[in-house]
Amino acid sequence: MSLLTIGTVAFDTIETPFGKAEKIIGGSASYISTSASYFVDYSNIVAVVGEDFPAEALGRLRDRNVDLQGLQIKTGEKSFFWAGKYHIDMNSRDTLDTQLNVLASFDPILPDAYQNSEFLMLGNLSPDVQLKVIKRLQKRPKLIVLDTMNYWMDNNMDDLEKVMAKIDVLSINDEEARQLSGEFSLTKAARKILQMGPNYLIIKKGEHGALLFNEKEAFFAPALPLEDVFDPTGAGDTFAGGFIGYLAQTDDISFANMKRAVIYGSAMASFCVEKFGLDRMWELKKSEVNDRVQQFIDLVQFEIKLD
Amino acid sequence: MSLLTIGTVAFDTIETPFGKAEKIIGGSASYISTSASYFVDYSNIVAVVGEDFPAEALGRLRDRNVDLQGLQIKTGEKSFFWAGKYHIDMNSRDTLDTQLNVLASFDPILPDAYQNSEFLMLGNLSPDVQLKVIKRLQKRPKLIVLDTMNYWMDNNMDDLEKVMAKIDVLSINDEEARQLSGEFSLTKAARKILQMGPNYLIIKKGEHGALLFNEKEAFFAPALPLEDVFDPTGAGDTFAGGFIGYLAQTDDISFANMKRAVIYGSAMASFCVEKFGLDRMWELKKSEVNDRVQQFIDLVQFEIKLD
Repeated sequence: MSLLTIGTVAFDTIETPFGKAEKIIGGSASYISTSASYFVDYSNIVAVVGEDFPAEALGRLRDRNVDLQGLQIKTGEKSFFWAGKYHIDMNSRDTLDTQLNVLASFDPILPDAYQNSEFLMLGNLSPDVQLKVIKRLQKRPKLIVLDTMNYWMDNNMDDLEKVMAKIDVLSINDEEARQLSGEFSLTKAARKILQMGPNYLIIKKGEHGALLFNEKEAFFAPALPLEDVFDPTGAGDTFAGGFIGYLAQTDDISFANMKRAVIYGSAMASFCVEKFGLDRMWELKKSEVNDRVQQFIDLVQFEIKLD
Repeated sequence: MSLLTIGTVAFDTIETPFGKAEKIIGGSASYISTSASYFVDYSNIVAVVGEDFPAEALGRLRDRNVDLQGLQIKTGEKSFFWAGKYHIDMNSRDTLDTQLNVLASFDPILPDAYQNSEFLMLGNLSPDVQLKVIKRLQKRPKLIVLDTMNYWMDNNMDDLEKVMAKIDVLSINDEEARQLSGEFSLTKAARKILQMGPNYLIIKKGEHGALLFNEKEAFFAPALPLEDVFDPTGAGDTFAGGFIGYLAQTDDISFANMKRAVIYGSAMASFCVEKFGLDRMWELKKSEVNDRVQQFIDLVQFEIKLD
């Protein structure tokens, strides 16, 4: 059940039609490990921050039982920073600023205690760093999930292909699936992508839900119709955290259980977008998660008896 | 179980990235009644064509057990004609030509045999004509479903409001729901629209599925991930035809049965887009419909036991 997440721990400045949040805690590893913390008793992360990163912020992760042995703190350097502004439809955004800082030279160090991790979540990050983590694990994990984005397809496709050849589940959005496969139809895209390495593909469609494919089967989970989407930042990472967190908790990587994991991931993501950054995610109650999953069940449940 | 459909019977010229079809049979009533014919033993339509409309085309409808007593054939006039071109994503299209012809002066005549219709489908058409049909029925049907579009919201909102006040189920797409309500969130939009008259609202999201709302509940049905969408023309009408056809067949207008009807409507629409116009819809087998519904069940089925 041991879960290891690699990704970014960073500062985000986010502007949405509802307001602005300056230099709040973000990064793929922060969202993933926080989301997963509602399923696993503890988890490990490998990431890097600068000395500007506030101890209070790290305390928040520790409070969610995230082990920070694998988090490097670089003296004299600054943390990764991203600033973005969402358009009115919340489905598109402009990146206003990206400062790699510590990420530029990130060399992931795996504490001994993290060897033998059974579940590995490769959060969005440079594919060459993701590759190093896979290589530095002496034993292949039971399940490796990769989340990536179009930026790496544009700029680092060689390394990304190498990572894809070594993973089990790939999680990307619909536009990325189209870019990666050169196919507009998501069914055709899925078939092509499953030949690039992963045995399972998750295509995230934002407010339109998520698809899970393996070679033979497809599963669709809707997104919950929400009153307001306040801030979509981190929704995909939160989904991934719920997905792998649920799989690690149940220690079952069958397709039937992955379908459940997609529902749990979707439920977690539906919380994430309700407030800025991780604000909604720090203090969820288990009963809230269960209620939300029940809403998903109610939303799609129907009974048809075919002759 | 008697089903009456009002709408257009027309010529369409359609261009998609896959090819072009000239002056093929189209119109909301054609699609609706053809789709419904797989559920009800027969159905009635009220519509109008010009003398240019080929007998062979009417024969096709008759073959699907569509009664044409209510179809006026106007000597010396031409049928309604629409020409459109779809963009590469198939989600948007340009109207290249619209010739109202017989529609400009359409005064719907209801044969006596159509009185006492229990299910009334108001296909996309001018709201003042839809209103006339409602008024000319001596007895209110058990269920009235209205399909309309943004054109009438832009140009004939007064009459559309009057129709909406008299119906049970409104079927529109997501953009139309946003326009009608002034709300971006579909949940908020649904709440506002349900105050305008209908007790049930269907929001069609094309390749992203469909939502069904009443005051208290929401249901979501995905669209089937398809290899290719060949021609989306009439998919919404075909959905509506499957929806009301299933309800008429089962004679059950509970929310639970409407959920099933949405699945059947979605299944029928998934066939419609596979070929140009009505080509795929004339000769479906019941077993194909059942197989497709099974695919929907498989696509969304999962089991979660909450504590």
